[in-house]
Amino acid sequence: MKSSDIPGFFAKAEDLNLDDYILLDYYFECVGDPKEASAHLCSEQSTAQWKRVDVDEDFRDEFGAKVLQLEIKDKLNDISYPVQHNAKGDVYACYAKIAHPHRNFGAKLPNLISAVCGEGTFFTPGIPIIKLLDIHFPQSFLAEFEGPKFGISGIREILQVHDRPIFFGVIKPNIGLSPEPFSKIGYQSWLGGLDIAKDDEMLGDMEWSPVSERSKLLGAARKKAESETGRPKIYLANITDEVDRLIELHDTVVKNGANALLVNATPVGLSAARMLRKHTQVPIIAHFPFIASFSRMERYGVHSRVFTKFQRLAGFDSIIMPGFGKRMMTPESEVKANVEACLEEMGNIKPVLPVPGGSDWAGTLKLVYEKVGSIDFGFVPGRGIFGHPMGPAAGAKSINQAWQAISKNIAIEEYAKTHPELQTAIDVFGKN
Amino acid sequence: MKSSDIPGFFAKAEDLNLDDYILLDYYFECVGDPKEASAHLCSEQSTAQWKRVDVDEDFRDEFGAKVLQLEIKDKLNDISYPVQHNAKGDVYACYAKIAHPHRNFGAKLPNLISAVCGEGTFFTPGIPIIKLLDIHFPQSFLAEFEGPKFGISGIREILQVHDRPIFFGVIKPNIGLSPEPFSKIGYQSWLGGLDIAKDDEMLGDMEWSPVSERSKLLGAARKKAESETGRPKIYLANITDEVDRLIELHDTVVKNGANALLVNATPVGLSAARMLRKHTQVPIIAHFPFIASFSRMERYGVHSRVFTKFQRLAGFDSIIMPGFGKRMMTPESEVKANVEACLEEMGNIKPVLPVPGGSDWAGTLKLVYEKVGSIDFGFVPGRGIFGHPMGPAAGAKSINQAWQAISKNIAIEEYAKTHPELQTAIDVFGKN
Repeated sequence: MKSSDIPGFFAKAEDLNLDDYILLDYYFECVGDPKEASAHLCSEQSTAQWKRVDVDEDFRDEFGAKVLQLEIKDKLNDISYPVQHNAKGDVYACYAKIAHPHRNFGAKLPNLISAVCGEGTFFTPGIPIIKLLDIHFPQSFLAEFEGPKFGISGIREILQVHDRPIFFGVIKPNIGLSPEPFSKIGYQSWLGGLDIAKDDEMLGDMEWSPVSERSKLLGAARKKAESETGRPKIYLANITDEVDRLIELHDTVVKNGANALLVNATPVGLSAARMLRKHTQVPIIAHFPFIASFSRMERYGVHSRVFTKFQRLAGFDSIIMPGFGKRMMTPESEVKANVEACLEEMGNIKPVLPVPGGSDWAGTLKLVYEKVGSIDFGFVPGRGIFGHPMGPAAGAKSINQAWQAISKNIAIEEYAKTHPELQTAIDVFGKN
Repeated sequence: MKSSDIPGFFAKAEDLNLDDYILLDYYFECVGDPKEASAHLCSEQSTAQWKRVDVDEDFRDEFGAKVLQLEIKDKLNDISYPVQHNAKGDVYACYAKIAHPHRNFGAKLPNLISAVCGEGTFFTPGIPIIKLLDIHFPQSFLAEFEGPKFGISGIREILQVHDRPIFFGVIKPNIGLSPEPFSKIGYQSWLGGLDIAKDDEMLGDMEWSPVSERSKLLGAARKKAESETGRPKIYLANITDEVDRLIELHDTVVKNGANALLVNATPVGLSAARMLRKHTQVPIIAHFPFIASFSRMERYGVHSRVFTKFQRLAGFDSIIMPGFGKRMMTPESEVKANVEACLEEMGNIKPVLPVPGGSDWAGTLKLVYEKVGSIDFGFVPGRGIFGHPMGPAAGAKSINQAWQAISKNIAIEEYAKTHPELQTAIDVFGKN
């Protein structure tokens, strides 16, 4: 790039119609001039060759991504992680805000992802290290997405639960158990007070547990539990499968009594999820496999909140995400950013239920509640319910008892003295 | 995990029916005992709770992933990249080969990805740093995939090119040019000797360039170029779009004369690509957006060759990948591993055409040819053809001239003396 080419990739926000642009927050480490590197970053992700060889024209004004802000944060001795590259020179750690015209890709998730996390972002000359930290969409772009059909309010309406978090539980053993005993375990957890009994994200439509059979048994068990407890319940069936089976599986399991669907969002593909959203009669809930592979490094890849926003665009009603437990190896600020990305105003796109999870049990509920800062979240133990020595009903009871203690502002250890299920949970799970 | 639980996640290869297992090669850095960490790695990705609380049973034999080999490579002072985690103790750098029973997920790409790159892999207690390096499939698993419909031999058959690499070119300007001038540029490149003129991976079905209109013009231009040159040509149309439009777009653009389809594999989703494969009448070619986000770190994420293999399973006939140029920031060994993953024997899955690309022009052809080590590759310049000062026909000619020089074992500088298109390419692109 010639130095005279660089200004064509810079603009002032006030000179643009921002409704035509998505905004991208990048951290990057460049070798050499940050201004030139950020111009390259724009060029590579938009109109890399902005004119024909023999024609006097310039596509940058209409189609070029543009640097709105560039902040040189630090001068480094070397890039933060070793990467094969040939640029030589001083290394600068930078933040850039880039405006990318959405006419370049349209309101289509695969094209959006290609534009902002694609070759342009990761193969910019002079930028070996880069992380897409955040993304912001204008109204005109959001308006073209359907967004969640149910969202938080829809899920609360189904369950008739308005004054506390939603209690999920992952039925365990997750892999290997046939539908009949599996459904018994789910049934018991509902009797104990669970709202949503769910398939593990690894449990799909398996030969040893066909989801048609599983959903029939769980659907019937759910209805039985509803009539016995007088409370609405949800069986969350995992229909993660090849894309061309999603609609058929939706129809089968919903007919059988599943009243929410689990989909591993990134492995199935966000666009396939959007297709399912257009068809679904019940809430669809995202699980997080694969996202850590590109989001865990502090300074490289894509921040997980970007994918939380993509999942809202795709139309998920709730998003299961790595939670606060240290076991989940996710900084608290990142979990909070993801919770916020579920709840914040986003034009016509409904707020969705964040479910920060990982090794939870009755004793971790208070911490999650405090960190989320509201009752608008799902709580999703596995072993904390289904590994409870007194059985899954007692496991579910222990969660409800923990919530009662929190509501009454009583320490759970105190409350446990008169609530044996909670006491046993503390004895067994409280030791780690 | 109790120490008595660990042996249940170890096995000897000779004691297993390996046709029931996929094999996974992992690098990881664990804090504490590597044996326990690798047992956790197996547990987390398969049957994390392998029995009901009140039943004497053990699902590990049938459903557990199992460590076949564990090699402690090094003791480190700290993990290679900072990660939030709570494990304390000595840090070991390890390689592990794990056998994962495919009955846990079946011959379904989203479920396979969830199993091997999911929560289990990236959220194993004691393993903050991990990279899935390679994956190997048994015959029984491969047999359930359709694989590529055309593969290398099918693409060569269409083009009637059997004795040299396949010459692709990315029509530029990539973004912003309307269909009519865009088609003229493609037409000229075919006249100059290009085999495949392609849409950029960022150029989808846009308001300012509807793919239906573009494919009509390019389809007609292709046929004109074929009759004028007497050679078959391919117009590679980018139909990257929402999943529920892929089949419709296939039908439209193929009817209009596109005779191969470009799909951004990871953004669209591998399973959606497999759906398209079942329907397609023409070769489908993968582009690589997003893959670098999880594959660039040497010791974290997923090696790109794993995704090359996934793309073969999905049924792509050719895979465009980051190539040898330093600009692509990819180690030579990684590019070679990806080329190899396209070409190596893989049961019933046909070999596919590798297209290692990035800032190529006539002068880089020899290097790519030597590094690939055979003629079975595609060569894909952009500016090296469409930024050639004498125009796209001359740009395409310069590539063919470079190949003639290589075949005749003449240095291109020498050959250029009597071939002005090549000489101009050297003058303009040979300076970097």
